[in-house]
Amino acid sequence: MANFGLQDLMVVAPYEPVWQEVRSAVGAEEVVRSARAFGRLEEAIGDANLVVGTTAGGRRNLDRDLLSLTELPGWLRARREGGRLRQAALLFGSEKTGLSNEAMSFCHALVQIPTAPQCPSMNLGQAVAVCCYELARAGVVSVPPRVVKLRHSDAGNLQSLEHTLARLVKVLDEVGYLKPKSRHAQILKLRRLLLDLGLTNYDVRVLGGILAQIEWKLNNP
Amino acid sequence: MANFGLQDLMVVAPYEPVWQEVRSAVGAEEVVRSARAFGRLEEAIGDANLVVGTTAGGRRNLDRDLLSLTELPGWLRARREGGRLRQAALLFGSEKTGLSNEAMSFCHALVQIPTAPQCPSMNLGQAVAVCCYELARAGVVSVPPRVVKLRHSDAGNLQSLEHTLARLVKVLDEVGYLKPKSRHAQILKLRRLLLDLGLTNYDVRVLGGILAQIEWKLNNP
Repeated sequence: MANFGLQDLMVVAPYEPVWQEVRSAVGAEEVVRSARAFGRLEEAIGDANLVVGTTAGGRRNLDRDLLSLTELPGWLRARREGGRLRQAALLFGSEKTGLSNEAMSFCHALVQIPTAPQCPSMNLGQAVAVCCYELARAGVVSVPPRVVKLRHSDAGNLQSLEHTLARLVKVLDEVGYLKPKSRHAQILKLRRLLLDLGLTNYDVRVLGGILAQIEWKLNNP
Repeated sequence: MANFGLQDLMVVAPYEPVWQEVRSAVGAEEVVRSARAFGRLEEAIGDANLVVGTTAGGRRNLDRDLLSLTELPGWLRARREGGRLRQAALLFGSEKTGLSNEAMSFCHALVQIPTAPQCPSMNLGQAVAVCCYELARAGVVSVPPRVVKLRHSDAGNLQSLEHTLARLVKVLDEVGYLKPKSRHAQILKLRRLLLDLGLTNYDVRVLGGILAQIEWKLNNP
């Protein structure tokens, strides 16, 4: 990350004995010093408004946009120019299992490093290096940081989307929409649906207001 | 390497206890199984006729072509089209010290991964991954292997060049050209000179014949 100018490292549920002893390479001290550990993925990516997951592709049935890594810079650039990119998170799974379906449900797109079919799965550190290299190569991460002012039309970040989803789930539970057996899968689908809507912060507030009102009515029949 | 379709791994003077226990990632078994260890660099790169070294750049005074990694595919392609590339070796130094001046003297060009100035030096495995990615990305390593027939104009490989250099050094020692104090530096310069000449196998044979003749005369005055 530090080699290619990326700074903001977040780690989800790290194995504590190892995490406490992480030491940085020369020149990367700041990345390690400022790294943050979170218990849950949603907390780690809460500030992002676009989440891109990484996958070796293959077996799993993915219903997200699947990009080649070489297409990722263009994909991000198009969204930045369209005002839909404020902060992007690039998400890596564990080396053994990759991203869970749960984790993928937070992703707006999935990116695949174009590896050889007979050896598709990469070492985690090497996958991170290659992704950071491609982003730097395309100039996506070397642009100077811009001051962003909130506007009505700003894309909603994941934290507020998750908040909205939680409210929605609460309501749907109360109204009996979610069935115990399929509840989890339904929630994943709803999350994707919310992501795909491309809600702005204004939209999120409106939706939150609607849900609050429904909640109130349910509790005060 | 296996992730990006490269197969031919050669290791110079590995630390034996670690080298013996190297295990491969899934899908990369063949790379490890067919990997060869050599005592000296010249043996490892003997089959190559173009050698590209990697460097974090910076302090050392390099008198080789210095390419950005993004330029390497074009550089290789131009040499392949010009018939000057039969087999290329990409050379990585140790993580702590990088390539020695001695090792660099075997290189036709040096390539630099465009890293951030405040953190230029990369982890070895990550540097290898990024280089392999760039080569695969540009299609340089995905072309099907071609059958090469030796022709008079074939570029001489490093092994025959080294053989020629050794003969030359022997002669120059005998004639007193090489001074004890500057001998090593002079040999490095001669190696670079030989490399830069772009000798064909035919040229190498001619030069070898000349040197043999000189040797004979020196020993039979």
